[in-house]
Amino acid sequence: MSEALPVQADPAGLAAFIHEVPDFPSPGIAYKDITPLLADAGALARAVEGMAAQVGEAGIEVDRVVGIESRGFILGVPLALRLGCGFVPVRKPGKLPREVRFEEYALEYGTDRLEVHVDGVVAGHRVLVVDDVIATGGTAAATGRLVTGLGGEVAAFAFLLELSGLGGRDQIAEHPVVSLLTY
Amino acid sequence: MSEALPVQADPAGLAAFIHEVPDFPSPGIAYKDITPLLADAGALARAVEGMAAQVGEAGIEVDRVVGIESRGFILGVPLALRLGCGFVPVRKPGKLPREVRFEEYALEYGTDRLEVHVDGVVAGHRVLVVDDVIATGGTAAATGRLVTGLGGEVAAFAFLLELSGLGGRDQIAEHPVVSLLTY
Repeated sequence: MSEALPVQADPAGLAAFIHEVPDFPSPGIAYKDITPLLADAGALARAVEGMAAQVGEAGIEVDRVVGIESRGFILGVPLALRLGCGFVPVRKPGKLPREVRFEEYALEYGTDRLEVHVDGVVAGHRVLVVDDVIATGGTAAATGRLVTGLGGEVAAFAFLLELSGLGGRDQIAEHPVVSLLTY
Repeated sequence: MSEALPVQADPAGLAAFIHEVPDFPSPGIAYKDITPLLADAGALARAVEGMAAQVGEAGIEVDRVVGIESRGFILGVPLALRLGCGFVPVRKPGKLPREVRFEEYALEYGTDRLEVHVDGVVAGHRVLVVDDVIATGGTAAATGRLVTGLGGEVAAFAFLLELSGLGGRDQIAEHPVVSLLTY
């Protein structure tokens, strides 16, 4: 187990609610467990408010929020409500009932895919892509390709946690990225 | 494909945003697709507000909201924020990183299980269990057992859609149930 790097900035006092679990899901990984944050009413509200504030302060205008299954749903829906726009789920294969577009992303061994309904993104829409954590950036980048493949514009990516040093931001370098906590 | 029964009441004008998909995920099933509702900012806000209003009007007091992976996350988190309480995810096996309690539920062939962190529910907590749809009620009932097994009280179950006639409500008959749309 490696020690987590210190949080670089935490104006909303959220880092205390992130629980580090060693060796999950596999040996050597220090998993950042956000469930203590979610379980605290005040921390949950400050997280949503903080992410929305970063989007607003960066001048990012949003027509629709896309959340990546399943933990991207947790912060994506309240962000959509806070920003006054609709929410679109990007899901694992076979879950969405109507016509989908898919993109593949690399796993440690092999690939997996993410799907979105073809009417989930409308041409010209400015889309905020939301997930809880960005690590290597594979699912974020695949979701970005889903958005642009349907003619949408990725207005920004928004994460609660960014694990810097894993190269995730490099995978989506052509788009703005906001994150509340950086490790 | 069978025709859907008419919606019994729809004060928030939401039924028009539920798209029925025949033969998904298997032949003979008329799947209720809520993604058009989620994608519409106004309908999404009215759905959350309507569910919160039903909880309030029934005099149901809530300390914590539990959402069932993954579509229960979609409405559970905004409901938690609206009700001023924290959110706890009930997840598929192996996803939660710390000590869990699990309950099994029946599938068409075999069983599956749902897990919750053992500190997700505190003894004495009044818990609102949230999912998007109640059909046969198997996952709802299993989640109720997770809550009571940890010493919590199921204050109520809240669903966006109730497919009556599949017996779901009978599985959780000992607890209050609110649902916005009944088919």
